[in-house]
Amino acid sequence: MTAPVTLPDTAPLVLTRCRDLVRPALSRAVQRLHPWHAGMAAFSLGWSDVDGSPLPGPQGKGLRQALAVLGAEAAGGPGEDAVVGAVAVELIHTFSLLHDDIMDGDETRRQRPTVWKAYGTGPAVLAGDALFALAVQTLADAPGGYGAPAVRRLASALSDLVRGQAEDLLFESRPWTGTGAVRPQEYRSMAENKTGALLGCAAALGAELAGAPGGTADALDRAGRHLGVAFQAVDDLLGIWGDPAATGKPVHSDLRRRKKTFPVLAALASGHPAARRLDTLLSTGGPLGEEACRRAAGLVEDAGGRAAALAEAHENLASARDCLERVPLAPAAHEEILALLPFLVRRTG
Amino acid sequence: MTAPVTLPDTAPLVLTRCRDLVRPALSRAVQRLHPWHAGMAAFSLGWSDVDGSPLPGPQGKGLRQALAVLGAEAAGGPGEDAVVGAVAVELIHTFSLLHDDIMDGDETRRQRPTVWKAYGTGPAVLAGDALFALAVQTLADAPGGYGAPAVRRLASALSDLVRGQAEDLLFESRPWTGTGAVRPQEYRSMAENKTGALLGCAAALGAELAGAPGGTADALDRAGRHLGVAFQAVDDLLGIWGDPAATGKPVHSDLRRRKKTFPVLAALASGHPAARRLDTLLSTGGPLGEEACRRAAGLVEDAGGRAAALAEAHENLASARDCLERVPLAPAAHEEILALLPFLVRRTG
Repeated sequence: MTAPVTLPDTAPLVLTRCRDLVRPALSRAVQRLHPWHAGMAAFSLGWSDVDGSPLPGPQGKGLRQALAVLGAEAAGGPGEDAVVGAVAVELIHTFSLLHDDIMDGDETRRQRPTVWKAYGTGPAVLAGDALFALAVQTLADAPGGYGAPAVRRLASALSDLVRGQAEDLLFESRPWTGTGAVRPQEYRSMAENKTGALLGCAAALGAELAGAPGGTADALDRAGRHLGVAFQAVDDLLGIWGDPAATGKPVHSDLRRRKKTFPVLAALASGHPAARRLDTLLSTGGPLGEEACRRAAGLVEDAGGRAAALAEAHENLASARDCLERVPLAPAAHEEILALLPFLVRRTG
Repeated sequence: MTAPVTLPDTAPLVLTRCRDLVRPALSRAVQRLHPWHAGMAAFSLGWSDVDGSPLPGPQGKGLRQALAVLGAEAAGGPGEDAVVGAVAVELIHTFSLLHDDIMDGDETRRQRPTVWKAYGTGPAVLAGDALFALAVQTLADAPGGYGAPAVRRLASALSDLVRGQAEDLLFESRPWTGTGAVRPQEYRSMAENKTGALLGCAAALGAELAGAPGGTADALDRAGRHLGVAFQAVDDLLGIWGDPAATGKPVHSDLRRRKKTFPVLAALASGHPAARRLDTLLSTGGPLGEEACRRAAGLVEDAGGRAAALAEAHENLASARDCLERVPLAPAAHEEILALLPFLVRRTG
């Protein structure tokens, strides 16, 4: 099967359909939390403001819940089979945002204060824990004897997720170049763990909950992991060249913070003359000002870092497609999964 | 069956035997973590120092792992059956210490720096998450089809645990007296959730993993919950009148922090004339100095708060014993569980 021609607006429609299917169960799950934690969860999910007043429309894309639903449908089951898994992965995603924002010191997300900024660090740690516990509880209660393998897969993804976050945090203290520098393969492993593990888990859980054979779930899991690397590469591109109006972050934000992102690492490893100038610029102490950021972005581009990150994203999307080709999937759901892939890369635009 | 006469040193022997049984599997589990997280876990467990150098002897009592092992033995199985559950509850206990110390701002624990103080807040949040994920993963992999019910029980205990911590944190902003004051029953519920849920889960998991019927596991769970309330009441007594050399905390530490503990709440609710003086003292702004703390401790005692907390501990230990009487348990293990109970109260010394 070759990649089908899809209408440009298929992806948003797919995301909306899956969100609508999952939302009632996700709302019910959140209501099981202590009211304090339910409030923080609703705030983080974009459902309500700090004072509890409802906000119109969905804030997040809901990519993980969509992958769970499409995983079930790709396995020939109804999307409803995946709902318990979709709820679990959305809760885990929300938990990881709450805790990651604390670790990264991020004060805003999607143009709103982060949970720790709005409610305090301690409450945000605890609300994250509550979401984590609720996700495991939700999945363990899955009907039809699917609870045990589903929890095993989620727990394994969670271990990878925290490992990836650890790798990312430890990158910060490593040198830009030389023997201690972060190699592209280490970056890929970090991105696969930090972002890919949960995306893969989402799709695989959906398939498993619909009774798919292990091979199908594993193929979806691998596809999701490639998708995670692509997603992270695109995120890195947006962190340097993204439109602040669209990303909600200041221009060059990742450069300003001297974040070890794929474009920068690829540029430094390129051997291009611009790489040495970039290294000098990044290795100078003190904050990186507006002009220095602009110069750094230019040097990353000159040394091929931007092109390398874009290629990394495209290669991993191709690998994700390959994974999906190797197992029998229901054609309509397969097509909808494929429709989500370019949607991710269009985010660079 | 009446409470058996036990030699005074039975409890430490029981704890040591259970720790020795669980330790190899717990060490192997910790080794599965990212090395950074394994180091923080080993530090928190008292196995090693910040620089990774090994420390002699066990630091924690290991009450939770002991309850898991004894739960299996009480159900007529070998203690080995419980090891996977014992590892899970110890990992969860360690996770909760890491995160609670962040939320409470505690800088020392057992005369050593807390993990966030030694390694930083972000790393401590992440290490806690890693321990949480590892606990779920360990239990989900339990052999013999026991994984699913075991994970369900752990997840339920985890939800209670974070709910209890939320209740405790929210007590801080409530008034000492009047309609918004924390009622003793609310305090009991908090203690049962925060401390009892995991103790009960430990004993019940052990029994379940040894193939006990649901009724036996549930009785052990309820006993552990009573034990948790007793444990918390004793902890509160130690937080006011404990010997700093034994507790590792400054004298009157809970009063200094204006913590809403059972002795204080019971004193304020007593109607005794000392209660009003205590209320005035606690409601005055600014830090509570050494002399004010001494006066407050005296007023709590005069108003019957110390006696009430001790009675609360004893009543809950009696209720725990009652729960154990109602189901058939292997006599030797039953006796060893009973031996642990007074050991807890002796901590008040």
